[in-house]
Amino acid sequence: MDADRFARAALSRLAEPCDQEVRTLLDEVGPVEAVVRIRAGSGTLARFRPRVASLDTERDLDIAAKVGARVVVPGDDEWPERLGGIPIPPYCVWVRGPLDLAETVERSVAVVGSRTATAYGEQVAADLAAGLARRGWSVVSGAAFGIDGSAHRGALAVDGATVAVLAGGVERPYPSGHATLISRIARDGLVVSEVAPGSAPMKSRFLARNRLIAGMTRGTVVVEADLRSGSRNTVKHAIEAGRHVGAVPGPITSMTSSGCHQEIRDGRAVLVTSTEEVIDLVGDLGADACEPARGLVRPEDGLPPLDASVLEAVPFRSALPLDAVVRSVAQPPLVVRAALGRLERLGLVTESAGTWRKRPQRRLTTAG
Amino acid sequence: MDADRFARAALSRLAEPCDQEVRTLLDEVGPVEAVVRIRAGSGTLARFRPRVASLDTERDLDIAAKVGARVVVPGDDEWPERLGGIPIPPYCVWVRGPLDLAETVERSVAVVGSRTATAYGEQVAADLAAGLARRGWSVVSGAAFGIDGSAHRGALAVDGATVAVLAGGVERPYPSGHATLISRIARDGLVVSEVAPGSAPMKSRFLARNRLIAGMTRGTVVVEADLRSGSRNTVKHAIEAGRHVGAVPGPITSMTSSGCHQEIRDGRAVLVTSTEEVIDLVGDLGADACEPARGLVRPEDGLPPLDASVLEAVPFRSALPLDAVVRSVAQPPLVVRAALGRLERLGLVTESAGTWRKRPQRRLTTAG
Repeated sequence: MDADRFARAALSRLAEPCDQEVRTLLDEVGPVEAVVRIRAGSGTLARFRPRVASLDTERDLDIAAKVGARVVVPGDDEWPERLGGIPIPPYCVWVRGPLDLAETVERSVAVVGSRTATAYGEQVAADLAAGLARRGWSVVSGAAFGIDGSAHRGALAVDGATVAVLAGGVERPYPSGHATLISRIARDGLVVSEVAPGSAPMKSRFLARNRLIAGMTRGTVVVEADLRSGSRNTVKHAIEAGRHVGAVPGPITSMTSSGCHQEIRDGRAVLVTSTEEVIDLVGDLGADACEPARGLVRPEDGLPPLDASVLEAVPFRSALPLDAVVRSVAQPPLVVRAALGRLERLGLVTESAGTWRKRPQRRLTTAG
Repeated sequence: MDADRFARAALSRLAEPCDQEVRTLLDEVGPVEAVVRIRAGSGTLARFRPRVASLDTERDLDIAAKVGARVVVPGDDEWPERLGGIPIPPYCVWVRGPLDLAETVERSVAVVGSRTATAYGEQVAADLAAGLARRGWSVVSGAAFGIDGSAHRGALAVDGATVAVLAGGVERPYPSGHATLISRIARDGLVVSEVAPGSAPMKSRFLARNRLIAGMTRGTVVVEADLRSGSRNTVKHAIEAGRHVGAVPGPITSMTSSGCHQEIRDGRAVLVTSTEEVIDLVGDLGADACEPARGLVRPEDGLPPLDASVLEAVPFRSALPLDAVVRSVAQPPLVVRAALGRLERLGLVTESAGTWRKRPQRRLTTAG
């Protein structure tokens, strides 16, 4: 492993995510020298001595390898450019799961909200997430009880891509009541954390984690939040990172929607009521200040409407026979087959034994 | 009765509320000459011949007198200046009930919405109306089933002032299922219409009526509306008249809230969730462009907080003994008594046999 990556992995164990001194040090001298100086521990850096004493990055990498996690750093293909552009980027991210992080979050929406959600909120979160996933958008959330869990499940239910960003290490499911859900996300989607394996989830890390959820996505949608909900912290980070924010309204008699209503009243969030409105919101964003420098044209941009709807009907990871795609699109079989051929030539779909799926995202087989 | 008033009463029978030709004629030659020309029926005015043939304004005034209704015209003390300022003012208004129209709508909010309201919407409408009425705001609506009826009832339930604006004559309750409610409003509040007694409610008159509801109030709040609800027409009139508009959110799974959500998304309405937020909305309005020319300072403006809360605790039409006011305000009796004395000297409250009420609004005892 290269020294830069190793040093960033070490930093993710030594320093808290938003440590201002370490951030400045990193900017000035780079990760390798930053770790050297923290190890030396002179002046204010002496505060890191207890952590330096117990630092064992090889062991952290071993733990990561055991759960199939890798360290992703700036400069990697898999490093999301969007994540490098937030006010305080992570030192690195630990990533667990079969998808490519950069590709997965390229078209992604954060769906977040209260842990103490109502049945209404959980239903809306699952429906929005499923709708987004069906249209090829990844759903990013925090794996918490309530809205987060419903959002992940909604995406998984339609075989969509979902990313859980944890406040502790990627090897420890938190909350433990969501161990099965998080395992499934690690198997089919991505589990991400900016803190090294073995790190416990702590209050400050939840708040730091929220900036990653907000920062790696094109926009954040709050489904239910009371006035003091942590998801309002995610909204704050999204605004600071220049992302658009949507909020789902609910009954004014429900305290669990009061935070959403307040964000809308304050003009910090746009009221959204459907998947289409969410895509309108984050689509605008893709076209404006957030990513102007990339100049990247995706093959599916500017597809004719028919081809776009056929592409939508083809799932990501499972495969469908032609007649199932035909049923979904409601167009004549020959028309659908021709569109699939065009999409195949664009590298957007692939055929195998008469079944069609979206071109799988690049998979990584080795850690780091 | 003066000729001007009589002529305007006649116009309200002859011409539809928003007849552009009659509006122009009225502006050019005044009401008396306008009626003369319509009676002459030359040129395009020939279209009024059937109505001229059956015109009997004395009879309309008799019908009005029988239900205790009067004709209010521009220049009357009871004529709301705000109503004269809308794009198409009424020729006159027929008014039934014990309150003074101008005083009653001076601090008023329109609470409107769908006829096919949900239990949630009806509860919210009643609660908002009661909250507004308790704080001395009149509640104006259209007496329809659903939200309108709940708004009127909410105001009546706390002994507040409420105004029903009908699309037909003030003597005919519409819908007939609300005959009892409308009778009660006529007894304790006001029933208003711009069309003469005997006029039937018709589709176009409902749309015209909505502009009066929007135009005579400081602001309009839509509680529930589907995308095609007539209350969105009231919103349009409120915006055209320069009034602020609030909309109450609801579950995105409820079609009956979809119109509210759309108004908020389009920036035509402000999301409101409580009586306080509604008063914030219409209070802003009172302080800005809508009524800048009046220069009128109301005695209760700028009251110290204690006196304002005591004034709030004193009802409009019933009277409360001192100890009941004390309980409501939760301040020592002597403090409350002193505040009542100050309010009495300002002419805001009145005492009788040890009970206190707000200074009754000027009552009219004769029609016209």
